[in-house]
Amino acid sequence: LNNIIEGFKRFRHDIFPTQKDLFKRLATAQNPRAMFITCADSRIVPELITQSSPGDLFVTRNVGNVVPPYGQMNGGVSTAIEYAVVALGVKHIIVCGHSDCGAMKAVLNPKSLANMPTVQAWLRHVEVAKTVVEEHAHCGCGGSHLALLTEENVIAQLNHLLTHPSVAARVASGQLFIHGWVYNIETSEIVAYDAELGRFLPLDGEVVPTATPRPRFTAPDKD
Amino acid sequence: LNNIIEGFKRFRHDIFPTQKDLFKRLATAQNPRAMFITCADSRIVPELITQSSPGDLFVTRNVGNVVPPYGQMNGGVSTAIEYAVVALGVKHIIVCGHSDCGAMKAVLNPKSLANMPTVQAWLRHVEVAKTVVEEHAHCGCGGSHLALLTEENVIAQLNHLLTHPSVAARVASGQLFIHGWVYNIETSEIVAYDAELGRFLPLDGEVVPTATPRPRFTAPDKD
Amino acid sequence: LNNIIEGFKRFRHDIFPTQKDLFKRLATAQNPRAMFITCADSRIVPELITQSSPGDLFVTRNVGNVVPPYGQMNGGVSTAIEYAVVALGVKHIIVCGHSDCGAMKAVLNPKSLANMPTVQAWLRHVEVAKTVVEEHAHCGCGGSHLALLTEENVIAQLNHLLTHPSVAARVASGQLFIHGWVYNIETSEIVAYDAELGRFLPLDGEVVPTATPRPRFTAPDKD
Amino acid sequence: LNNIIEGFKRFRHDIFPTQKDLFKRLATAQNPRAMFITCADSRIVPELITQSSPGDLFVTRNVGNVVPPYGQMNGGVSTAIEYAVVALGVKHIIVCGHSDCGAMKAVLNPKSLANMPTVQAWLRHVEVAKTVVEEHAHCGCGGSHLALLTEENVIAQLNHLLTHPSVAARVASGQLFIHGWVYNIETSEIVAYDAELGRFLPLDGEVVPTATPRPRFTAPDKD
Amino acid sequence: LNNIIEGFKRFRHDIFPTQKDLFKRLATAQNPRAMFITCADSRIVPELITQSSPGDLFVTRNVGNVVPPYGQMNGGVSTAIEYAVVALGVKHIIVCGHSDCGAMKAVLNPKSLANMPTVQAWLRHVEVAKTVVEEHAHCGCGGSHLALLTEENVIAQLNHLLTHPSVAARVASGQLFIHGWVYNIETSEIVAYDAELGRFLPLDGEVVPTATPRPRFTAPDKD
Amino acid sequence: LNNIIEGFKRFRHDIFPTQKDLFKRLATAQNPRAMFITCADSRIVPELITQSSPGDLFVTRNVGNVVPPYGQMNGGVSTAIEYAVVALGVKHIIVCGHSDCGAMKAVLNPKSLANMPTVQAWLRHVEVAKTVVEEHAHCGCGGSHLALLTEENVIAQLNHLLTHPSVAARVASGQLFIHGWVYNIETSEIVAYDAELGRFLPLDGEVVPTATPRPRFTAPDKD
Ligand SMILES: [Zn+2]
Ligand SMILES: [Zn+2]
Ligand SMILES: [Zn+2]
Ligand SMILES: [Zn+2]
Ligand SMILES: [Zn+2]
Ligand SMILES: [Zn+2]
Repeated sequence: LNNIIEGFKRFRHDIFPTQKDLFKRLATAQNPRAMFITCADSRIVPELITQSSPGDLFVTRNVGNVVPPYGQMNGGVSTAIEYAVVALGVKHIIVCGHSDCGAMKAVLNPKSLANMPTVQAWLRHVEVAKTVVEEHAHCGCGGSHLALLTEENVIAQLNHLLTHPSVAARVASGQLFIHGWVYNIETSEIVAYDAELGRFLPLDGEVVPTATPRPRFTAPDKD
Repeated sequence: LNNIIEGFKRFRHDIFPTQKDLFKRLATAQNPRAMFITCADSRIVPELITQSSPGDLFVTRNVGNVVPPYGQMNGGVSTAIEYAVVALGVKHIIVCGHSDCGAMKAVLNPKSLANMPTVQAWLRHVEVAKTVVEEHAHCGCGGSHLALLTEENVIAQLNHLLTHPSVAARVASGQLFIHGWVYNIETSEIVAYDAELGRFLPLDGEVVPTATPRPRFTAPDKD
Repeated sequence: LNNIIEGFKRFRHDIFPTQKDLFKRLATAQNPRAMFITCADSRIVPELITQSSPGDLFVTRNVGNVVPPYGQMNGGVSTAIEYAVVALGVKHIIVCGHSDCGAMKAVLNPKSLANMPTVQAWLRHVEVAKTVVEEHAHCGCGGSHLALLTEENVIAQLNHLLTHPSVAARVASGQLFIHGWVYNIETSEIVAYDAELGRFLPLDGEVVPTATPRPRFTAPDKD
Repeated sequence: LNNIIEGFKRFRHDIFPTQKDLFKRLATAQNPRAMFITCADSRIVPELITQSSPGDLFVTRNVGNVVPPYGQMNGGVSTAIEYAVVALGVKHIIVCGHSDCGAMKAVLNPKSLANMPTVQAWLRHVEVAKTVVEEHAHCGCGGSHLALLTEENVIAQLNHLLTHPSVAARVASGQLFIHGWVYNIETSEIVAYDAELGRFLPLDGEVVPTATPRPRFTAPDKD
Repeated sequence: LNNIIEGFKRFRHDIFPTQKDLFKRLATAQNPRAMFITCADSRIVPELITQSSPGDLFVTRNVGNVVPPYGQMNGGVSTAIEYAVVALGVKHIIVCGHSDCGAMKAVLNPKSLANMPTVQAWLRHVEVAKTVVEEHAHCGCGGSHLALLTEENVIAQLNHLLTHPSVAARVASGQLFIHGWVYNIETSEIVAYDAELGRFLPLDGEVVPTATPRPRFTAPDKD
Repeated sequence: LNNIIEGFKRFRHDIFPTQKDLFKRLATAQNPRAMFITCADSRIVPELITQSSPGDLFVTRNVGNVVPPYGQMNGGVSTAIEYAVVALGVKHIIVCGHSDCGAMKAVLNPKSLANMPTVQAWLRHVEVAKTVVEEHAHCGCGGSHLALLTEENVIAQLNHLLTHPSVAARVASGQLFIHGWVYNIETSEIVAYDAELGRFLPLDGEVVPTATPRPRFTAPDKD
């Protein structure tokens, strides 16, 4: 723990004084524009890869960047979504997977989970992506199973996202936008899902890909 | 979303090249020493306040830095704990609350949750802390209800942490250590729970406070 | 009960003998091509409105033609879907709502459910559609709330359908097709959802509307 | 899907005009006298075998004609029961099993469910019948295991039915009657459970068998 | 606690030595013939009112002598039943309610449970009995609501008992017997439910009333 | 059942008349000072080993003297705790394990539970103790695995007890005390957990061991 406490002391004495005004402003309210759902993996630092400041991103992280579908039993991720959309009014939700994800590897190799029953149960939310990959294992479409599963998992979690009432209602009227990314740790590349084309494209390409279905309604005038 | 994409481009072109070696090393494995459980609040950036690098902290975040007790229905937080302890072998788990927490304010003002049923259900895990505060509302012990609830919530979540088999077993033999912090956004101060004294003390004081119960066994020799 | 028993006797003596061969053929196997998910409402007779014979439609019916999203707790509808797709290999799934639906009326008038707690909990699966309607209550887009909710409910249940692994995998490779209908009891009209256009169109129009997302893969050769 | 759409067109142009008055009358209300709970199997058409018209039967169908017991987690079947009894005031509930049922065969051959975890979990509600059959496998009482299980399953689901508050209260005062049937696809025979005798008898025999326990109260005068 | 510790010392020094042989015999095995399910109420001492010795009764106690129906989520009572029947092979299960039961009074006066959400949820298992009583509140059949509810609750829990596979199978073949009692604290009277007559009769009357349904099978020869 | 009915008659005719006054006083209220949570095992008679009278102990019993942690799904034990603390205001809660416990033996030998799925699921609440024992199987600390597991199980259930809001709040202010015992059937010895020392000590030794954490607050004046 010493490294961490030393890090905290450095933050307190060297960094904090230079951002005192920002933190003072943030002391009594947050007003983030985006929600970021990603893996708990230690190699992902959302604020670093998007160069965001404190107050910018509402972040929820779990094993495998999972979004359980809305149901009768809702937990932490569903809570964070409802809070972000209803209480904070975020305009964007980003679901971000990543290369070399331990959760995805475990899905492809279930035996590795023998002594982790909780992880095993949780990854049932990835089953939909796994089934897609299994059905197409022999499709010769190039690309590894792990890469394909990582992408399909992001698509599956975007579908789950649309089962949440607060999300679906605002997406249907063009007030909220959803995004599906995969971040490559080694190369720093991010690809984003384009729902119209059914494919992932570079996030920093000419056109910004979007996973948001076409709105069916005009937004009410209330904002 | 433009800010975020611009931030990503800056990361990719300006920051990443300077840390290329670190990311190459991380491309195929993570080996974090600590797990960090904190609130989804946008004003908390765990890696910033502990000056950690990618690969250092396994992070799970949710509304109110809650740790549901281990049970027959386990979700994302329980999964992250099991994965961190069993698969990654972390040595420390930090539960970190913070000042001005929207979840704590909602617990004290349940009416604000009328149209957020999922958040309401989730915050049942904070009930134990709320009951403590309510019982002592008239105790005249100084300090606001919000500050007291924030601290009691951290203590409650530490108790929940000890209901998880993987955690309890390693704590009982001195192989895993647990910590309860409260971070003050405005002042940058962090206080940590000292289980022996039953009080919170500054993290950067002379003695490092610990919330870990005394081990009942000697660690097996396996490491 | 007399009517029903008399009906059974009529069936046995007058109808059955004329279809003896069909029933003999069906005695040891079923091989339906389509699954039909509709409301328990007594006014809907799926085989009548599609002029189907015994053996044609695998039918599951519940209050509000609901499809709960796939999750850790799955019940009767999820079971029927898994069985239809995996064990029977159906090629089409139709979700069929209807005019004057008691469940939809109850969603718009929750007080009517005061002494029906189970119905109330079940209709939480319609919340996503209700939230869409509420957000657009003042949109002046014509059409009643009830009609809009009935359509949005079908769209919501189609989204839920795509969270089921067996469904998503086969839809992704063009082996399974999903359809969203609304049947009008008084006029006998059926409208079907066109996902591309985001609107409902007559089922007996020139083009057959489809709610199936574009496949991302070519079907494996196994059939 | 063509067959189904063609069927719908035939219904719309040939059948509907002849029943226009019935459908007009049904357009704004349903008033069924009986609820029919049966298997989703495509070979069962409840309205055909009871020669019922639209508006006569409130129908819920699932794999294995299961009625989960009333509990803290209630789903679609429990919802349909509560709605039928409380909102619609049906006087009869019929639970109808059938010959050659895929669900019953799966219960006797659990290996066939290896890749259908949801079906497997659902059929836990049939466990009580399975245990009875297993205990009496060597009883030499004649009849196949499948036939015995199908009957015992109907008895078990009748018992489950009586755990539902709305059902039990009305049965106790002679306002609601419950029936357990097994339908034979090949022969068109239906047998019904006689609770007093503890045996199944032909439905079209001299006496109509009943599964309703003797009422303990006189019905209130309210109707 | 002093009373209790003093009581223990009296047991250890005065009582235990007189029953040393019994306890020695019991040290490595239990072989109870009956399971006793009753309320946690401090005024009920099962071994006292049946004059039983250590080793005679397998006892489970909870608020309201509830037996939740067998389902997908089973808890402590279901566990005790399965263990008693399968592992210990008990021949009798007694469900015993009692006069002046706090749980029954709370069911009739739900407001008293406002700050006890867990108790409230648990007593949902008594809803079936409550609904019966409410429907017959104005029946003028004599007897108080509390007494009627207490009896109906025992009947409801006997019905729940029959949804447990291990119980139903053995009851069906005459190997296990179930009993429903109500104990009167003030008068020491016990009445027992007679399922055939649908009424409660004195336990110490001429005929011993039984709540066991008639067996449908002959017991296998295995014992 | 004859023994039991004969026992009841003896109680009614020989014992009850001698305690008529006590039972009369108890007829309309209970006011127990302590709650006793123990195993359903027939060899444990709480009132015998503590020489308590009717009205003294509020008793809940289940397989393995388990206290599930407080959560979103609470059952019978949680209900009994809430009722005892909030409605009855007990001052002490005793969790009492015992020698030769069938539940503990089953935890060490899971195969024995193959045909008892409900018991298996329930004993998941003992997993935390089992994991501790497994980690220290080779510690050579003397004592059998069974004895160690029995003690660790009591400690685990005490931790679970502290996740219950009603318990934690009153413990935090010194109004409620918790105790962890292990009773030896053969020798009549009881040892009690001393939380400060982290060890079990004889209950009838010089100092009474306590498992209650130090209070963090002064009790409110309300009593
Ligand atoms: Zn990952
Ligand atoms: Zn917060
Ligand atoms: Zn309807
Ligand atoms: Zn069937
Ligand atoms: Zn009671
Ligand atoms: Zn035991």
